[in-house]
Amino acid sequence: MKRDILFFDNDPYAPENQFYRVEEVLFVGKSQFQDVKVLKLDGFGLALVLDDVVQFTEREEFVYHETLAHVPLFTLPEPRNVLIIGGGDCGVAREVLKHKSVENVVLVDIDEMVTKVVKEYFYHLYKDAFEDRRLKILHEDGLKFVRDYRGEKFDAVLIDLTDPVGPAKPLFEEPFYRMIFDILTEDGIMAAQTESIWYHQDTVRDVQNALKNVFPITDIAYFITPVYTGYWWTISIGSKMYNPRISYRTCNLKTRYYCDDVRSVSFLPQRIYKELMEGKLFSDDK
Amino acid sequence: MKRDILFFDNDPYAPENQFYRVEEVLFVGKSQFQDVKVLKLDGFGLALVLDDVVQFTEREEFVYHETLAHVPLFTLPEPRNVLIIGGGDCGVAREVLKHKSVENVVLVDIDEMVTKVVKEYFYHLYKDAFEDRRLKILHEDGLKFVRDYRGEKFDAVLIDLTDPVGPAKPLFEEPFYRMIFDILTEDGIMAAQTESIWYHQDTVRDVQNALKNVFPITDIAYFITPVYTGYWWTISIGSKMYNPRISYRTCNLKTRYYCDDVRSVSFLPQRIYKELMEGKLFSDDK
Repeated sequence: MKRDILFFDNDPYAPENQFYRVEEVLFVGKSQFQDVKVLKLDGFGLALVLDDVVQFTEREEFVYHETLAHVPLFTLPEPRNVLIIGGGDCGVAREVLKHKSVENVVLVDIDEMVTKVVKEYFYHLYKDAFEDRRLKILHEDGLKFVRDYRGEKFDAVLIDLTDPVGPAKPLFEEPFYRMIFDILTEDGIMAAQTESIWYHQDTVRDVQNALKNVFPITDIAYFITPVYTGYWWTISIGSKMYNPRISYRTCNLKTRYYCDDVRSVSFLPQRIYKELMEGKLFSDDK
Repeated sequence: MKRDILFFDNDPYAPENQFYRVEEVLFVGKSQFQDVKVLKLDGFGLALVLDDVVQFTEREEFVYHETLAHVPLFTLPEPRNVLIIGGGDCGVAREVLKHKSVENVVLVDIDEMVTKVVKEYFYHLYKDAFEDRRLKILHEDGLKFVRDYRGEKFDAVLIDLTDPVGPAKPLFEEPFYRMIFDILTEDGIMAAQTESIWYHQDTVRDVQNALKNVFPITDIAYFITPVYTGYWWTISIGSKMYNPRISYRTCNLKTRYYCDDVRSVSFLPQRIYKELMEGKLFSDDK
């Protein structure tokens, strides 16, 4: 193992941490909201790092972005109007815009620096989104945007946030989900990144219970990426009409990971879901 | 984050590494074959560490051991005679012995110190195996044992090895799989831990191609545990008669993770399998 410059990922609430070998430091900055870095990591290529937590890398970003976009969107017969909260890197937006039926994507990320930095260092990954006139990017508070929104309702709301600590915390709670319910069409769906099965079972369960109080149909999908510790990472879903385990349309998009076969194993097995909700997952006592 | 004593996992061929906070060092030793440590890790409990790589911890050991045992054994209508290569900790043996039809388990692990240390520090986890008279533990070279074996044929051979470097390497190769084929019954099955989808695609593909040259039916199952970097970790299967995607019997065993629902999502999705074998997985060019 080379012992040169190491970067220690500072996951705010995992018992085990990761470190990477740094090949190059491309950007170090500080926005009003967080520290922002772009590092070149051995074996992963460029990485966007916020508050010393790797958010994504060139090598694996597509797994998370494709799952968060396509699992909910393929649940709908014809998504047209989509809202993304967070996701200022435009990774989820890029995937959403692959759906031909989509006419309008609004992205609300509080931190303008993220979008600026991604535009400069990751343009090759997200140019399809940046150059698409259907995408409108706003830099404001997502909670405030949703609370005050009075425009055309959304078919899907996708929530792509950092960990539920500090200012992001209210965006993982029932009052926020209730506001989202109100700005969704009558067959609308929402999906949110909600941490790992291994390290954050309480968060996953709390979110699912909050969603159950708001939406008639709720579920948990997952994805696996090597840069998030705990790796068995969840996407929590609230749906007004359609069962998210069923894909309404066959996937014919150009993707690197998501496809109908992958979708078929992208939801928690029923017994795992049940045990998680009962607080008995992995327990001897069940 | 507490900055006390850290243990750096030294995965021999992953670009990213993990570290843990050490609460207690219980054992440090050196056998003829490897360094052996028992550490108490914050958030994981006791861990067995070989050559500075975490092999399993109290918190998550059941995921790996249950998957490697039950996926192949539930493929068979009535496994009776089982061989385990490696696995001197007896974790896989404990799971195998839960099958009532099993009459005889032979475990061949080259390193006696592993079994001794596990017996001393992890007895609470594996006592069902240690106390079961159906289990016979031999400390010798697995390759030599298989090559020279002339006894009753095995219904299943389960291979539970460390990474394919050094002396373990020939046990990931076709000549060894051919010897295993010869000591299996005519409907027998073998399964082996074979590294991760993210970091070791070449190994997974090479093993699968080697198995294809020997067995009429081959496949790849997977499991996810936070202590193995790359986390999307494979179990490669060679079968003489039964399709491993089908469970011959309903699981009614007392387990913490494995069950019929879990099994249904424990094989690589067909498109992922195909792209992996073509060397196009995660590629833009497909």
